[in-house]
Amino acid sequence: MRTVAIVGAGMMGSAMSIPLADNGHAVHVVGTPLDNAIIDYAIARHVHLTMRRALPDNIRYYYAEALDEAISGADAVIGGISSFGVNWFAERALPQIPVNVPVLSVTKGLEDMPDGSMRTFPQALAHKCPMGHSLNAVGGPCTSYELADRRHSAVVFCGDDRTVLRRLKTLLETQYYHISLSTDVTGVECAAALKNAYALAVSLAIGLSEKESGEGMALAYNPQAALFGQSVREMGKLLSLFGGGPENIAYGAGDLFVTVFGGRTRKLGALLGEGLSFAEAKAQLRGVTLESVAITMRTVRAVEALSERGMADKRDYPLLFHIGRLLANETGIPIPWSSFETV
Amino acid sequence: MRTVAIVGAGMMGSAMSIPLADNGHAVHVVGTPLDNAIIDYAIARHVHLTMRRALPDNIRYYYAEALDEAISGADAVIGGISSFGVNWFAERALPQIPVNVPVLSVTKGLEDMPDGSMRTFPQALAHKCPMGHSLNAVGGPCTSYELADRRHSAVVFCGDDRTVLRRLKTLLETQYYHISLSTDVTGVECAAALKNAYALAVSLAIGLSEKESGEGMALAYNPQAALFGQSVREMGKLLSLFGGGPENIAYGAGDLFVTVFGGRTRKLGALLGEGLSFAEAKAQLRGVTLESVAITMRTVRAVEALSERGMADKRDYPLLFHIGRLLANETGIPIPWSSFETV
Repeated sequence: MRTVAIVGAGMMGSAMSIPLADNGHAVHVVGTPLDNAIIDYAIARHVHLTMRRALPDNIRYYYAEALDEAISGADAVIGGISSFGVNWFAERALPQIPVNVPVLSVTKGLEDMPDGSMRTFPQALAHKCPMGHSLNAVGGPCTSYELADRRHSAVVFCGDDRTVLRRLKTLLETQYYHISLSTDVTGVECAAALKNAYALAVSLAIGLSEKESGEGMALAYNPQAALFGQSVREMGKLLSLFGGGPENIAYGAGDLFVTVFGGRTRKLGALLGEGLSFAEAKAQLRGVTLESVAITMRTVRAVEALSERGMADKRDYPLLFHIGRLLANETGIPIPWSSFETV
Repeated sequence: MRTVAIVGAGMMGSAMSIPLADNGHAVHVVGTPLDNAIIDYAIARHVHLTMRRALPDNIRYYYAEALDEAISGADAVIGGISSFGVNWFAERALPQIPVNVPVLSVTKGLEDMPDGSMRTFPQALAHKCPMGHSLNAVGGPCTSYELADRRHSAVVFCGDDRTVLRRLKTLLETQYYHISLSTDVTGVECAAALKNAYALAVSLAIGLSEKESGEGMALAYNPQAALFGQSVREMGKLLSLFGGGPENIAYGAGDLFVTVFGGRTRKLGALLGEGLSFAEAKAQLRGVTLESVAITMRTVRAVEALSERGMADKRDYPLLFHIGRLLANETGIPIPWSSFETV
């Protein structure tokens, strides 16, 4: 039995407690300052407030102030924050984690640099808190709900040190949680982040179909598949542009598949597809975190920066730039179908 | 205005009449000897019997015996038969088509050769009827129903001669039917055929989830996405093995996406995922053509042949061989999740 601390009590971080508990490990879940209601609820009922799933009985919960105590003695730490919490995690949590304790982050995100390169989440953490931690991350298609339901899920742990990755895999692998390992952090993290941008794009077809026929998704597989194919094409080129290996397109495609079926990103894409402006769509989706918007705009900026240096051709990414224009509040622009054609 | 003959009155061939008619061309639809009921129905009602969609009023219909008359004067011929009709098409239809009239085939299929190579449908036709026709084919994600409904659909025409491909594109491109061109016939046709095998694989997760929870698709996105990702990984390797360009994975992924949502292949995969033997599943699906089964077994044979010659490693395709075992009537074998992991 090992002890694992999960920092951040969001849905995905909390869901990671399920395979850990199933493997007999002691789990400490510590909330961020924004997670107090989730911790209250979990202590009272052993249920996750927003995920609405039972949590293992033997988890110990901590409020943000007790971070130090929660982490103390942990053999590994899981970073369960959203990409918007990166600074808090780097400034408040990471300095309290001994450098010999590996960190596995469920956060998906990329930061665009002025030169057009993309910094992965582990790179961003290392930059903000350069203490020498082993910073690893999870990619691949996995929603928290289904992990909590113990559905078969295939993920990939990425990091610089394969020995550390193997230790993390041993802690977490179960009959339903299948873990690949990769030292191509850029490739895995690019795939994991880019799929958020392109899930917006595929979802445009859902809204378009609802508007045109009132029949929604069921009659829009051809348009969705067309956008899905174009998304895979552009993701493949972006992987290459940002320095990730081409084989990561399998994670990107699988992750895009699962993301199109659920939640906020799909809703936003469908609303944009119906013809709403981004401002109108945002108003309808009040209160949701829009990581897909952040990653799209970051990718647009990175490709523009590389394009200005002659290192990228914007015409390779017509769907990305279409989404970028929609998110810049342009309306009435049709999907640029003909720009997807190779001739 | 041009005249286009469609040989074979199946759903996809017939759906091609819609963009042709929308572009003002004269369309002749001629049935195979198995299509008499479809031709009867279309003449009487201008509706396609099995697709259940209205067909343009100005199509002229012909029975198989009038093939000669239907083809006479055509500027292009569309081959609208299933892969099971390849011999009929090569022996009876093709010899009647002037060699300067380009042929565009909607048929998707590959034939495995004893040396492990794969012959595309245009190659098979040219072999069976070596008169020197320009033989081209359609790939990309497009269901006949949605094409008939004029939904946005992105396809790719492939063939050896880009000038011919451009002429075919001019005939068929509309506001909703978006056509890319490619001279990588092997790549396009491999992607188009392989997706049938892997659609079976992804659909296993649907049946598995129905069996485990009774809740079907809605709770099985993680397992489906895991199999989708593994399918993209193996399709990419097979493309390379059979000599297609890697960029065709975008067609394969888009096509896999649309195929998972519909029809016979999904049903068969779901039944196998529930644990039925192939024989039991076939009995439930009586009367359906199972191109997905044929292409899976052909691909299995091709990889085995290449493996025996040291040109392929069967361990690169665990999902393909799993499906192959199920189609060989094995039961009780679980999805080999751990064999998908890279470590």
